[in-house]
Amino acid sequence: MANVAFIGLGNMGGPMAANLLKAGHSVTVFDLVPEAVQQLVDQGATSAENAAAAVEGVDFVISMLPAGRHVEGLYLGESGLLNVLNSSAVIIDSSTIDAATARKVHAAAAEKGIAMVDAPVSGGVAAAAAGTLSFMCGGSDEAFASVKPLLDGMGKNIFHAGDSGAGQVAKVCNNMLLSILMVGTSEALRLGADNGLDPARLSEIMLASSGRNWTLEVYNPYPGVMENAPASNDYKPGFMNDLMLKDLGLAMETAVHSGSATPLGAMARSLYASHVSKGNGKLDFSSILQSLGGND
Amino acid sequence: MANVAFIGLGNMGGPMAANLLKAGHSVTVFDLVPEAVQQLVDQGATSAENAAAAVEGVDFVISMLPAGRHVEGLYLGESGLLNVLNSSAVIIDSSTIDAATARKVHAAAAEKGIAMVDAPVSGGVAAAAAGTLSFMCGGSDEAFASVKPLLDGMGKNIFHAGDSGAGQVAKVCNNMLLSILMVGTSEALRLGADNGLDPARLSEIMLASSGRNWTLEVYNPYPGVMENAPASNDYKPGFMNDLMLKDLGLAMETAVHSGSATPLGAMARSLYASHVSKGNGKLDFSSILQSLGGND
Amino acid sequence: MANVAFIGLGNMGGPMAANLLKAGHSVTVFDLVPEAVQQLVDQGATSAENAAAAVEGVDFVISMLPAGRHVEGLYLGESGLLNVLNSSAVIIDSSTIDAATARKVHAAAAEKGIAMVDAPVSGGVAAAAAGTLSFMCGGSDEAFASVKPLLDGMGKNIFHAGDSGAGQVAKVCNNMLLSILMVGTSEALRLGADNGLDPARLSEIMLASSGRNWTLEVYNPYPGVMENAPASNDYKPGFMNDLMLKDLGLAMETAVHSGSATPLGAMARSLYASHVSKGNGKLDFSSILQSLGGND
Amino acid sequence: MANVAFIGLGNMGGPMAANLLKAGHSVTVFDLVPEAVQQLVDQGATSAENAAAAVEGVDFVISMLPAGRHVEGLYLGESGLLNVLNSSAVIIDSSTIDAATARKVHAAAAEKGIAMVDAPVSGGVAAAAAGTLSFMCGGSDEAFASVKPLLDGMGKNIFHAGDSGAGQVAKVCNNMLLSILMVGTSEALRLGADNGLDPARLSEIMLASSGRNWTLEVYNPYPGVMENAPASNDYKPGFMNDLMLKDLGLAMETAVHSGSATPLGAMARSLYASHVSKGNGKLDFSSILQSLGGND
Repeated sequence: MANVAFIGLGNMGGPMAANLLKAGHSVTVFDLVPEAVQQLVDQGATSAENAAAAVEGVDFVISMLPAGRHVEGLYLGESGLLNVLNSSAVIIDSSTIDAATARKVHAAAAEKGIAMVDAPVSGGVAAAAAGTLSFMCGGSDEAFASVKPLLDGMGKNIFHAGDSGAGQVAKVCNNMLLSILMVGTSEALRLGADNGLDPARLSEIMLASSGRNWTLEVYNPYPGVMENAPASNDYKPGFMNDLMLKDLGLAMETAVHSGSATPLGAMARSLYASHVSKGNGKLDFSSILQSLGGND
Repeated sequence: MANVAFIGLGNMGGPMAANLLKAGHSVTVFDLVPEAVQQLVDQGATSAENAAAAVEGVDFVISMLPAGRHVEGLYLGESGLLNVLNSSAVIIDSSTIDAATARKVHAAAAEKGIAMVDAPVSGGVAAAAAGTLSFMCGGSDEAFASVKPLLDGMGKNIFHAGDSGAGQVAKVCNNMLLSILMVGTSEALRLGADNGLDPARLSEIMLASSGRNWTLEVYNPYPGVMENAPASNDYKPGFMNDLMLKDLGLAMETAVHSGSATPLGAMARSLYASHVSKGNGKLDFSSILQSLGGND
Repeated sequence: MANVAFIGLGNMGGPMAANLLKAGHSVTVFDLVPEAVQQLVDQGATSAENAAAAVEGVDFVISMLPAGRHVEGLYLGESGLLNVLNSSAVIIDSSTIDAATARKVHAAAAEKGIAMVDAPVSGGVAAAAAGTLSFMCGGSDEAFASVKPLLDGMGKNIFHAGDSGAGQVAKVCNNMLLSILMVGTSEALRLGADNGLDPARLSEIMLASSGRNWTLEVYNPYPGVMENAPASNDYKPGFMNDLMLKDLGLAMETAVHSGSATPLGAMARSLYASHVSKGNGKLDFSSILQSLGGND
Repeated sequence: MANVAFIGLGNMGGPMAANLLKAGHSVTVFDLVPEAVQQLVDQGATSAENAAAAVEGVDFVISMLPAGRHVEGLYLGESGLLNVLNSSAVIIDSSTIDAATARKVHAAAAEKGIAMVDAPVSGGVAAAAAGTLSFMCGGSDEAFASVKPLLDGMGKNIFHAGDSGAGQVAKVCNNMLLSILMVGTSEALRLGADNGLDPARLSEIMLASSGRNWTLEVYNPYPGVMENAPASNDYKPGFMNDLMLKDLGLAMETAVHSGSATPLGAMARSLYASHVSKGNGKLDFSSILQSLGGND
């Protein structure tokens, strides 16, 4: 069993740290919100005064923070963790951030001889609690091998996407594609319904045809077609429009960085930006169907 | 076994008629191309001088023609088949045409008391030959029930999409969605590759994640990822860009007719229009990946 | 002065016919709405029982109808005007319809030796009343020359766009571009305002720079920037979203017909389709700015 | 006359500094390329060993650098100019960079009591040489008033867009709109030509109608329509696709930052990204017309 520091105990980080405890690891936690820390302490974690204290002598540091600037702030600079960590420790950053920042932290860690894996997750709060997250990892083969057993305690699919930053890139690629599947499926159902087809029947047909995709399988955006989908529950999330817009923003930054053309991804971002700016940020991302309008 | 007239013996119609013969039906055929007729006669069909002669006394007429104006020309007007057919005959139009024309022919047939099913197919030439086509049918429950056994001899999935025209609508919805899956998957793989990821590994990850879709399952657009896919065989079709552009044109006409918004579908049509106009019409539709450019 | 038959006395046709009367022409009118006819009779027109009666002995027939099928119905078929007109008469169809139908009527007229000009207008109801419409004309040089003096009585700019159908094509090209200018200008103003800029100042800057376009000159979509623009009057039209969506539908049909790529035009159509389907059809087309959302 | 330091003597900076000399100012220059420095010295400038030396005792610092990270590197950090400058000096950054970095430098300068104006330019190399650039300025009224006379020596239109960063925002708004005008005009001309219209005549019609915009006025993208336009000279720039793609990348970053929807701008960026990645980066940005394909 390993000694682990866990920094960032929000909606995702909290249950992830709890699963590490259940798996038998020693976990020292830090967060700016005392209640979040207490909840983990109640489950057997040790609390620390600050991030630097939390990482003393640990084998692994896991961070789960909102954006690239927080990750940069945690690891880099004069008071950053890179100045405190043993070179034997391995960093796992599970935050969803831009690949450029991830690579910058990787490079700074490498200069100190510290291994790192960027390991953003997908699956949402439910999967974090159930320990069934997907991890998309970027880093060397050795670094990936060293963190794999730990991640197994928090997730179901642990992917090695490639070198430093590759985890972040894989996640934005997947989530950009997901947004396209969701908008595209919404358009197709909308077009069918506007022309008199029953959306449930059309969903069945496309699911059995070349239109098959993850949203038709488990996350149908048309109200009433799939009982347990957010669409049939007033678009209660699920995965919020706010988060999809964040991921699409990262995808656009990645595309700008590499000069890549992403016509449908760019359009999806604009549709989500309009949708969110009209007050729908907290609804499930399948509510994008409503933004298309339609005959009903 | 039924008496069937089959009008239109092209790449698709020829093998479809052949499968009807194999299933034991009596088939009278007509086409403007004598060689196409002869090929079917060699397999046991009867030839007719013209379409009107072909349909004398038949239980079913099946037509497989290039566009709405041909279907209109065959059935309507003074010399149209509606003036010749018994009211007990059932029309099956398997052409992929605009829903408006399909509904016009349905209505004219209904006036004569003749039942009709619009039944466009998907699956391409290979599925036509193998008898594994998908049929998307529009028409009354009775009409659908009456044609189902016949279609079973030519296809694997026989869907009842709804009332008159619904088969055409279902097909354009599905194929519009397919084009979106293909372009979206291409964008995601392109974005990943431009940022250093291995397309095969990224494909695996997305296939196991929420980006999963038909193109990742069986039709990966990135050369070398899937051995038997057109992408790994110089984009030899498969399903040609020309045909995808035709279907997207029908989708746009349908969307204009119903006032529906199809942002990604409209963008996909423009991408295919550019791609085709640069001389790629005969390549497989997964070659749209190349139109995005990229770092390699 | 000429003998003119005017068919279709709606919001546009009524004032156009009135201007012909003012210019001193003899005008015989027909419309299905008696009140519309009476209004013109009050101004000096002669009424006719039906379209066929209206065109007896005239030099010119002008039609102003809602869609291609009405134009086809008026001129073609057994009871169509082409069977009644003298071959010396010239047809002017000022309806905004698809170019394919326009060309079909041109061809049918040519078979009877009757000259025709398709001559859709722009400028809206105000310009129709003021006699300052723009006409975009398609037809031979001779036909154009013969109708030019008559059109001068109803419009300010009389363009000869090219051969049969060219008037319709020119209009959809211009109006598609107009929709792109409007959406693009709205996006730019929205982006500026969301980032703290004053829309009026930004408008001034872009008007004096390479972003200059007709909408910034005379039709600013941001409320309060331009006192007399619809945007500053609760988006009271002006030019309704319904009509812009109709024109964009014609543009898409034209693009499908010629296999042309229109990425921004297609996107504009989808944005207008969503906007209209949410109940904004009767607002001015500059209200598309609101559909983008934004920080305010 | 003022004492001015000019940092960055590239294609744009060189002629701008030369115009300051012509206007009678004392100019101290610095650039990493000795030839660039020598050229200015030959025209009367003083050279400096490094940027810090160049700014000693000056009234104004003007910087003209490729990207945000260069500007950050020049002014911020331990060896940054903010640690060297008198508080009476005013900074003018004419680089085209992201607004976020511009605001960061503004804030850091303000902490030292140093006034700053972000002042990106438009007009290209020709306007830089002729002293007819447009400057879009962000900063306080006082700061703007203090730099205005200096900028008058290098430009024709000196706009005050708003507070810190507003110059950068105004420029990306304008250039995003410009890209939309260019693509939209290209689409309209392409659609017309594909349907048989003469592009020159269609250009004339739209220029006199509601499609009027800067590109139709002075920069027609269709070869042969406008003799002096890049389109009629093998798309020799003018304004390169590379630069338009850079500006559209900045626009997307700005839109991501503010959560704004820019559907047409996002599409334009993808079209330029594809176009550039196929080797067209050094061609004029009006060559985007060719990327659409078409019937000829």
